[in-house]
Parts: sequence; C-alpha cells; structure tokens
Amino acid sequence: MAGAAAAVTRRAATLLLSSRFRTPASRVASLIPIVGANNRRFLCASSVSARTAEPAEAASQLGETVKDFRKRLRIDEVKGGPDQGLDWVGKDLTVRGWVRTCRVQSSVTFIELNDGSCLSNMQCVMTSDAEGYDQIESGAVTTGSSILIEGTVVPSQGAKQKIELKVTRLVVIGRSDPTTYPIQKKRATREFLRSIAHLRPRTNTFSAVTRVRNALAYATHKFFQENGFVWVSSPIITASDCEGAGEQFYVTTLIQNDTEGNNFNVSKIPTTKDGKIDWSQDFFGKPAFLTVSGQLNGETYACALSDIYTFGPTFRAENSNTSRHLAEFWMIEPELAFADLNDDMACATAYLQYVVKYVLENCKEDMEFFNTWIEKGIINRLNDVVEKSFVQLSYTDAIDLLVKSKKKFEFPVKWGLDLQSEHERYITEQVFGGSPVIIRDYPKEIKAFYMRQNDDEKTVAAMDLLVPRVGELIGGSQREERLDYLEARLEELNLNKESYWWYLDLRRFGSVPHAGFGLGFERLVQFATGIENIRDAIPFPRTPGSADF
Amino acid sequence: MAGAAAAVTRRAATLLLSSRFRTPASRVASLIPIVGANNRRFLCASSVSARTAEPAEAASQLGETVKDFRKRLRIDEVKGGPDQGLDWVGKDLTVRGWVRTCRVQSSVTFIELNDGSCLSNMQCVMTSDAEGYDQIESGAVTTGSSILIEGTVVPSQGAKQKIELKVTRLVVIGRSDPTTYPIQKKRATREFLRSIAHLRPRTNTFSAVTRVRNALAYATHKFFQENGFVWVSSPIITASDCEGAGEQFYVTTLIQNDTEGNNFNVSKIPTTKDGKIDWSQDFFGKPAFLTVSGQLNGETYACALSDIYTFGPTFRAENSNTSRHLAEFWMIEPELAFADLNDDMACATAYLQYVVKYVLENCKEDMEFFNTWIEKGIINRLNDVVEKSFVQLSYTDAIDLLVKSKKKFEFPVKWGLDLQSEHERYITEQVFGGSPVIIRDYPKEIKAFYMRQNDDEKTVAAMDLLVPRVGELIGGSQREERLDYLEARLEELNLNKESYWWYLDLRRFGSVPHAGFGLGFERLVQFATGIENIRDAIPFPRTPGSADF
Repeated sequence: MAGAAAAVTRRAATLLLSSRFRTPASRVASLIPIVGANNRRFLCASSVSARTAEPAEAASQLGETVKDFRKRLRIDEVKGGPDQGLDWVGKDLTVRGWVRTCRVQSSVTFIELNDGSCLSNMQCVMTSDAEGYDQIESGAVTTGSSILIEGTVVPSQGAKQKIELKVTRLVVIGRSDPTTYPIQKKRATREFLRSIAHLRPRTNTFSAVTRVRNALAYATHKFFQENGFVWVSSPIITASDCEGAGEQFYVTTLIQNDTEGNNFNVSKIPTTKDGKIDWSQDFFGKPAFLTVSGQLNGETYACALSDIYTFGPTFRAENSNTSRHLAEFWMIEPELAFADLNDDMACATAYLQYVVKYVLENCKEDMEFFNTWIEKGIINRLNDVVEKSFVQLSYTDAIDLLVKSKKKFEFPVKWGLDLQSEHERYITEQVFGGSPVIIRDYPKEIKAFYMRQNDDEKTVAAMDLLVPRVGELIGGSQREERLDYLEARLEELNLNKESYWWYLDLRRFGSVPHAGFGLGFERLVQFATGIENIRDAIPFPRTPGSADF
Repeated sequence: MAGAAAAVTRRAATLLLSSRFRTPASRVASLIPIVGANNRRFLCASSVSARTAEPAEAASQLGETVKDFRKRLRIDEVKGGPDQGLDWVGKDLTVRGWVRTCRVQSSVTFIELNDGSCLSNMQCVMTSDAEGYDQIESGAVTTGSSILIEGTVVPSQGAKQKIELKVTRLVVIGRSDPTTYPIQKKRATREFLRSIAHLRPRTNTFSAVTRVRNALAYATHKFFQENGFVWVSSPIITASDCEGAGEQFYVTTLIQNDTEGNNFNVSKIPTTKDGKIDWSQDFFGKPAFLTVSGQLNGETYACALSDIYTFGPTFRAENSNTSRHLAEFWMIEPELAFADLNDDMACATAYLQYVVKYVLENCKEDMEFFNTWIEKGIINRLNDVVEKSFVQLSYTDAIDLLVKSKKKFEFPVKWGLDLQSEHERYITEQVFGGSPVIIRDYPKEIKAFYMRQNDDEKTVAAMDLLVPRVGELIGGSQREERLDYLEARLEELNLNKESYWWYLDLRRFGSVPHAGFGLGFERLVQFATGIENIRDAIPFPRTPGSADF
C-alpha cells in the first residue's frame, strides 16, 4: 500500500517538477501583475529566468549567478488583510498547501486548502471543466494530500469567508491515503495527538499554538532589543558546581551503546580503585549537567554590558507528571545592571504587556480561535493585562490579606509559608479581580541564596508576578551585590564558597546593584493561548518516559 | 583583603541606594529636559513619583501600582548618533559604568568610563572642585571599579572623541582592587581570557564580539520573520533513533552523585541480568542524547506551516581540539516547503547578505575595531558579500576546475572526493577572488541519506556555501520527498527503517518538495568578526575537558 502510494507520489512530484508543468515566468507575470514575478516564489526558482544584474566576471565563465530569493504566495497574504481578501477579487493566483477537506457534489467540488500561514483555509471551488478534474474523480484529492491550485479570486457566497478561489487548474503534489492518515475530521484527543507530534501541527489548534508561540518569541526579542538589551547565550552543558546537585540531567560520554546500537555493559565504565566513576575520563573531565538556569552566567554579562537577556532551553530531571512541568523548557532571563527591585518589577510588567499586546495585534485570527474553542474570554483577560495597571504588594501584606479573608485553604496561612497555587489564585482572581499582581519581599528562608537581603534582615528583594489561571508566571529578584552579605549567606546555607569563585568575583571587582527575572516560555504560551497542558505548548515535549521524535 | 574591599563595596552601595543620594525626579527632569523623566531609568525606579494614571480600585486599597519601565541612559545613546554626541553639548546627564582607566594629573583627572552599550568610553574630565573628588584622592577609582558620574557634556579637545563629560559629581558604586583585578591594561592573551570567561566581556574585543553576535542573532530572526517563516524550537534531548549513534552525548539520571557531591558507585547503576545498562529505569525509559541537528524535526513543521526555522543549541561529542569545533554550538536551520534546491540557494544567499548588511549598518564602531585590530580588510570583505552576486557551480564543474588548475593539493582531486578546506579556499579565494561560492549536486556517497537524488542517479541536490577564510559556512539540500527513493536509500545504508517511521510519514501523507539548510552560528560570528578561534565566538565555550562557569 505504501509502495503504491509512493509510486503515485513520485509520479506526481516528478510530473510537477518537469518542465511541462512549469509555469513560465512570463505567463506568471501576466497572470498576477499586481504581485510581480520578482517577489514570488514558484515551485522552482529555476523556472524564472536569471535576473538581469551583471554577474561577476568569473561567474559568467565558470558558474551561474544564484537567483533572487522570492517569497511563495501565502494564503495569509491574500486573506489576512483588513478586507479579508476582497481586494484580491478578479486576480489570478497560485496557492499550494494541504487539503483539509474535499467535498464532491454533483455540479461542484469544494476543497478547503491550508498552507499553515494562517488558520483560514482557502476555499477552492472546482467544476468539472477545470484542468486536473480527473484527480478529483480518481479520488486523489483527500484530507492530508498536498496540492497546487491555480484560480481566480471571486467573492464567496458562504458566510464563513469573503472570498474563494475559482479553480482553473489543480495538480496533486503528494497523496494521502485516507484509510491510514491519522488526522481525520473527527476530533482527536490531545493525548492521541501527542503520539503523532510530527503531524499535529497540521491541526487548527496546534498550528495556531505554533504561530502564537512564534509571535511571543519574536516579540520577546523585539522588546529587549528595542530597549538596548543584548542577547547572551548562556551555556547548556555545565560542569560548574554552582548549580547544585539534584534534579539535574548528567551529560556524559562514559556510557555509549556501540554503533550497531548494542546495549552497553556497565563493566566498561572507567572507575577509580574503590569502584566509583572515574570522571576524569569523561568528556569534560568532571561531572557535567544540563543547565537549570542561565541566570548566574547572565549576571556576568550584565556586569559588563549592563542589560542582557538569555533565551534558551533549560532542564529539570524532576519526576513530575503534571500539566505544568516539562523536563525541557525554554527560559527568558533578563538581567539589568544599575537596577533595583522596582526597576525589575517595572521591566517585567512592561515586557509582559508588550508581548501580550503584540500577540493580540498580530495573531487576531488565532486568538479568536482560542477564544471560541479553547478558553472563552481569553481575549478579554489578555486585554486586561495590557490595559490595567499591575499592582504590587509585599509578601507580609499578602499574608495579612489571606489571613483576613477567613477562607479555608488546604495549606494554612502564616508568615513564612511559601505561597501555594491556591493562595496565588485567590489573590489574583478574587482580591484583584483578574489583574496580574506582583508580590515582593519574601522571607529569605524560602528564597534563593543570591537574592538581596532587605534592611529588616528577614526578607529579601524578591518578586513573583502572578497571573490569573496560571499563577506564578515570572519570578525575579534584586541580586545581592554586597560581597560580605553574599559570602555570609553561602556559609549559612552550607554552600561551598570555592565553587562560586567566579560569581563572587562580580562582587569583588566593580560590583553594581543589579536585578533580573526568569520566565518559563511555555507557561507564557499557556497563558496566551489558554492551552491547558504544557505538553501542548512546545512542539516536542520531554517528560518522564517520553522523549520521542 | 577581600573583606576590606567588600566592606567598602557595601558602604558605597548602601550609600548609593540611600535616599540621601537619590536624585529626585523633579530635579532630574530639570537637569535633562530633552530626555524626559519618563524615558530614563535612574538607579531606583522608586525614586521617581508614581505615574499619574488611575490605579485599579483594588490597588489603591491594597497595594501600589507598579512603576513605568524607564531606560537607563546609555553611553551609546549619547555618542552613537551621527554627530558623535555633539548634539548633546551643554546638557547635564548621569552615566554609570565601569572604569577602564583613571589618569590623575596635577590639575585634572581623566576617567574613561564604559557601560558596555558601545565600544566607546565616555571620557570624564574631573577637577578637584567636583563632588566626590575625595574618592579620586583615596584611590578608590581604579580600573574595573563601577562608578556613577554626573556632569555636563562639553566639546572635547582630544582627537579621539568629539565630546567629553565635565564631571560635577562622582560616586563610587563598587571598588576593584587593582592588585588582584585580572584585567589590567597590559594586553592579556586569548587563552588567559578564556580562563576568566566571566570577566572577559569587560574587554574591548569581547564586548564587541558580544554586540555583533547579538546583532547577527536579531538579524536572523528579523530576516525569517519578515519572510513569513515561523520559529520552531526543535528538541534538545532526544531518544529518537534517527539521529544515529556516535559523537553524541548521553543524557541520563542513572548516574547521580549524592547531594553532598560524593562520587557515584558504578554498582548502583541498574542493570539487566547480563550486566548491561537497564535503560528502562532511566528518566526517559530508553537511551537519550543531546541533539546533533533539529532538521528532521524542523521538516515535520515545514510540512504543516510551509516555512519554518530553528535557532537553538546543538551538540557534538567529538574529541577535536581545533579552532573550528565546539561541543556545544548554536544552529540556524530553516526549512522551506514547496521549494527546490534553487529556492534553497536563493534563500541562503539572501539570508547571508541580509545579516551581514545588518551588522555593517548597525555595528559600525565594532566593525571598525575588528577592521583595525582583528582582521584588516574585514569590512571590505563583508561589503563584497553584500554587494556581489553569489556564484553557483556544480560539484562536477568544481572538480574539473581544480584538476585543470594543476595545483598540488594535499588531498589529490578526483570525482567523488569530499572537498577539503584547501580546495574550498582555492575556489573562493583564488578562482572567484573572494566571492562566496555555492557548490551544488554532490556525489550521493559523500552526503546524507535524506538528500534528494538527482536524475543522473549519481548525485544529490545538495549545496555548500563557501566563503573566504572560513570555508563552508552553510550546508543544505533539497530533501528526498519520494517515499520509495527514501526507503531504498535507508536500506542501501543499512539504516533501520522502523526508527524513521515518523520521518517517512511526511512522505506518506501529503509529501511536498522541500529544502533547507543549516548554519553554525559561531562560524557566522567568526566570519563577521574575524575572530580566529571559535571559542572566542560564544560566551562560555564547551570543548573536551572544559565546561567551566
């Protein structure tokens, strides 16, 4: 079966790439004068004549000039404008994509074509006189197959869209056997779709999540770049003792299945005399791990370039099978020099408002999809984030407020308690009616060693930004820039000062007040899309027992 | 010694943060009216009065509104304009940064201040009547110390700069003991600077590399986003068998030093009856590795969203101690659906020209630094890349050309040979006089299984983009979209077809012609800066025996 399908695929593809089916550049240019042959990519760049610019002398003798890069016409460009495509009416164009549905009726066939550039399909209306109608008759145009369509934009009769494409020509590029294609019209469960992570971006939900994730990432870069921050790639593998043991993945070449994939015999691991692993023979000469945070490294660059941010993967070998945890996730960690906790809170707020606004403005269609199908009211919730002032209050005030609420919590409230999800949600959802809230100045016992001690000697200049539904989205702090305070804290916590020599150097040589925060990118994707399980917020989720694809 | 320095640091920092030394917002606004209090960050955001916008009702009762985010004034903003700061003459301003040098003369003191925002220092001229002059006298203002300077911009007498700052007030933020600060004026070797990777961004060379690296990264995102590509995060950890064994790092929790850091006894590794590692007890339930490429994963998303790119870390456990190899490096891997090799070459060319142009336009000062100190002529070389047409020729023609050259190569030239650096450099540097060259259609035996077979059945639709000095910068191919061809190739190479089930699915269901390329980001940084050793092109290099910091 696969063989037969493949043969068809091959024939179709060969056919498609053969000169017979190529659209000559001249014809294309006359077909879509508004677009211009120079701006559009057709299937083969070679099908467009070489550009007229003079090639280098050597080139003219020994090689050919590389052609200009032309964009393929995307459905989003046609339907994504304010007129939803009405300005394209009367134009001839070519689109390529995957068939979502094909409904053959007696006089007319409707093909819904999607190319991933937007949620909208291009509705293609085909009658039996169009070139390639035999492909419809032969049953080659099925859900999941890839096709090329040439046609004329016409106003649509349907309520769902303003325009549709009257097909003049159809070419099947790659078939899709309807009896085995795993994504059928019937709605599949999220669990099932995770088992076909290579195909799930072909669904509405996952293509929309992918586009919004992309927009959030780009908006992140834009925000920091526009504010003078420098992107720094913090290391992924680290042998630094700073990171502390526990919940880390080891990275090693001491164990290696052989090239045939045969399992490794433990006796081959080099050991010292007492049967312990001989780390000196490992790739890095000592134990090495996957990083849990780029912050300490980021601080070194902030103490030279002033304002930096990291955006890269981080890891936890935590055995928790929840909808909020991944073993591999992306983190954004800005670090601001000459800044205190107020600057940090202001930056976190401005950042969050910027990226949410960017998504609301640039992913309208996808956000409406989430608003209808994933989380009713999400657009209003996000608009609130952009428009409302964020509120900050101290941990001590937050505890007061929880105690006074007289509400029964699973974890009873008292000063010193690490706030749980139930408390965080009560504060953002009940007390502040859906506004994001920043809680600051936490007890030092429940926070990390590097956070700056406040004058009360009980609390540190830490802050958590809480949002409705998700809880903590951002955690940050002013860093302890005073060498003696930092050393004292390391000793209090029985941490090995020598391991932190380079981190302490930042306080020895030109120390400056600085602050930063961390944001789990997939949590942000959850927050902005309403997707419930974090495994659906990243293309290929890694969790206990699962690292396929 | 460290203790004494710390005490000073603490005092200075405490002083600085105390209200006594804060500049009230009103005064600041009057000091620098052109800038406006709302746009600038001073040391403490709290020192500026709350914004006038109405806080949420709850907020007014229970918390404070978070302040607006204000940028700190950066030296680049003053000196980076076309007038090199002359338009700031007469204005009062505050800058913060690290002292590069402090020259005390009888009547006047010159402080070169750098804040990492640009290569240029702010030359600060201080006379004994300025506030804080006692700090000069006490020797607290040394190389590496951090200070705050208030002053008035005046035209400079020096030839090196158009303006300087006449100091009205100096505050030492953090001292730097001149007897132990590792970065002294005397030029340090690159090797030594690698051993203090946490401080090397405070040198001219490494701060410039960091800024250019940042510009290349942002330009990468801009290019692809502006062309409709979607950023996809390919997985870092993978248990997929597709990646093939060899030169991979294993990721495991089967070995774990205890929380006290005591070495792990090999006997604790779970084994099967025959003494082999029991992978079923590992975190992912089977052997897992660090990825060597995101391409195959990227293809799955291109076959849904049409045009995507990855930009993330990849890994090689290759034991090579060269100036061209890293164990951890960042890769950019775009993948274009409905595209062939010509589109791929056109995209690679447009991409490279875009990012190089971006750096030339946005990092002028840094590029002039490289042109003077690192690689003479680099600006001309990069201008050539932007302006010259790229030439493409087939591998077969390239072999012809090498044979006809009658040049003696270490690796004798004949058809089927994998081109070596000597051949690549001869072609770009000698034959094409410094132009980038793309070589295409390589023998299938020397290329990867997934590359599309050409009609001659001997070559595949692969391309390598070669540049002067660096050699291969980009490698790409059209992918084999025909299921039967791909399966036959896997069998020929004795690869396990079952492992590739999901990759083959892309050819089973709606297969499309697609193509992509890969680019090692640190090679690009080398290419754009002239930095010779790749270990100096990434903040924290990972190589055999070295994963510190």
